[in-house]
Amino acid sequence: MSRQRATAFAPGHVTAFFSAHPNERPAAAGSRGAGLTLSDGVTVRVSAPGERAASDLTAGLSGAVTTIDGEPGTIGAVDEVLAVLGVAAADGSPPNAGAASRPTVTVDVETDIPIGAGFGVSGAAALGTALAANEAFDRGRSENELIRIAHEAEVSRGTGLGDVVAQARGGIPIRVEPGAPGFGALDGVPSQARVEYVTFGELSTEAVLSGDTTALSAAGERALDRLREDPRLPTLMTAAREFAADADLLVPEVAEAIDAVADATGEAAMAMLGRTVFALGTGLSDAGYDPAVCQTHPSGARLVDGEREP
Amino acid sequence: MSRQRATAFAPGHVTAFFSAHPNERPAAAGSRGAGLTLSDGVTVRVSAPGERAASDLTAGLSGAVTTIDGEPGTIGAVDEVLAVLGVAAADGSPPNAGAASRPTVTVDVETDIPIGAGFGVSGAAALGTALAANEAFDRGRSENELIRIAHEAEVSRGTGLGDVVAQARGGIPIRVEPGAPGFGALDGVPSQARVEYVTFGELSTEAVLSGDTTALSAAGERALDRLREDPRLPTLMTAAREFAADADLLVPEVAEAIDAVADATGEAAMAMLGRTVFALGTGLSDAGYDPAVCQTHPSGARLVDGEREP
Repeated sequence: MSRQRATAFAPGHVTAFFSAHPNERPAAAGSRGAGLTLSDGVTVRVSAPGERAASDLTAGLSGAVTTIDGEPGTIGAVDEVLAVLGVAAADGSPPNAGAASRPTVTVDVETDIPIGAGFGVSGAAALGTALAANEAFDRGRSENELIRIAHEAEVSRGTGLGDVVAQARGGIPIRVEPGAPGFGALDGVPSQARVEYVTFGELSTEAVLSGDTTALSAAGERALDRLREDPRLPTLMTAAREFAADADLLVPEVAEAIDAVADATGEAAMAMLGRTVFALGTGLSDAGYDPAVCQTHPSGARLVDGEREP
Repeated sequence: MSRQRATAFAPGHVTAFFSAHPNERPAAAGSRGAGLTLSDGVTVRVSAPGERAASDLTAGLSGAVTTIDGEPGTIGAVDEVLAVLGVAAADGSPPNAGAASRPTVTVDVETDIPIGAGFGVSGAAALGTALAANEAFDRGRSENELIRIAHEAEVSRGTGLGDVVAQARGGIPIRVEPGAPGFGALDGVPSQARVEYVTFGELSTEAVLSGDTTALSAAGERALDRLREDPRLPTLMTAAREFAADADLLVPEVAEAIDAVADATGEAAMAMLGRTVFALGTGLSDAGYDPAVCQTHPSGARLVDGEREP
């Protein structure tokens, strides 16, 4: 029996502001904007077959068994990535499954960051799955191909527009043009920071993105122009606060926290799209909150290790 | 007196194969090809004024004082980057220099890797200088702008064509199209490896690049086509060995080492352009050499820290 497994890490990503750019082709769809990638992120381990006793877990539509922090779960974009890479078929058959036994592909997702709160967990899981599955099953795709596959999966599922390409770059990415490699274009703010964050609950990306995004996108374009004229971190934070107000996305707890940080002469903004506030340095601590603490992440998503015994 | 300093790290880069693409515009000039970025690299500390007693060091043409591993030295591309960023003027005046005192901008370059041996030290120094000087002197350039400035400096000085963009990306970069951001395009091999290397001496990049590169570039294009069809690390190594032979660049000590590693069932190739052999895993150790050991570097060049007291 072959043993195939690999692990990848993708940083979290808080979007500071964005404009939505739908397109019939998922690779060309995306968002423009900017954000911070975080050292808190998502680790994805892909293994199959025979690596896991999966009998007590439920296989998803793709035939893969996914766990999220040890519990059975489903991430649509992850299933999509596995299907595109031919690692799990749409009919539920894992690849190379013998007639007698049908062992299951397992995807174990571990997150340092809250789900549904604006940290790009689904994008990170999709990108980490693409990198790990490519390695474990020796699919021979290039980095850009894997980024495109994860981006298309996110866009198709309506769970994100710009996290994947940002998480693939790392640092403090500026999404200059929307879309996957070959379509989009990225730049970055050449800086680094300690980042604090507090989450007050979930906010549905799908609900916002499926509504009218005209006013939101106009505000996002203004914020991007401002940052590109002055690609510094304080400018990113100012532009983010203006965007949240102009796009009418601020929720009360987040607005209150941003004000409290400002009163303590710090810099904070809302993570798009989540009931989450993030601050530079010790902004939230200084304002009396008890935040999670991390750093901007110096690199994009990467394979951590891999093993194949064909 | 203001205190301004910042430190940046840029990974080393061994080019496996390349084709040369000169252009009148340095930003559009470059090379196509592939290589490995290394965790051994170059750390650049930019500081001025008043941070260093520079009286016993000699200022270069740009007015900057450069040290290389603690010794006075000059790197043309570094002087060029400082001049473009307005940090040191071509007439030798540092910025904001008072009439009475003319304190000097200091650039301290520390390398883990040999100079002139195919590790892209000049490119790494130029890129590290761009990142650190931008931070120390609050120049407000974006990452892409800083990469372009460092790339243009390398190309103008004739010391490299593709190292800077590779070192800005990290990992195992594929230079799909030549040139700086906005002109070139990159992809990557989604892998990682332990890397061993041995250097037998210097080889002049300028001498090779200023000669007839027609046959070399044809061999480089073939190697790139091969890798893009199969973006895996073993294929990169095979393509690199074929390129070195076809382009007639192999030097005897390197050829001997590559053969010895192959006899020990390892993978080795020549670093372009240097009298250097690099191998995956324990290839050179297994063949009886006493190599330096590092890893592919997961990220591109980054600011390490910065401090400004305006």
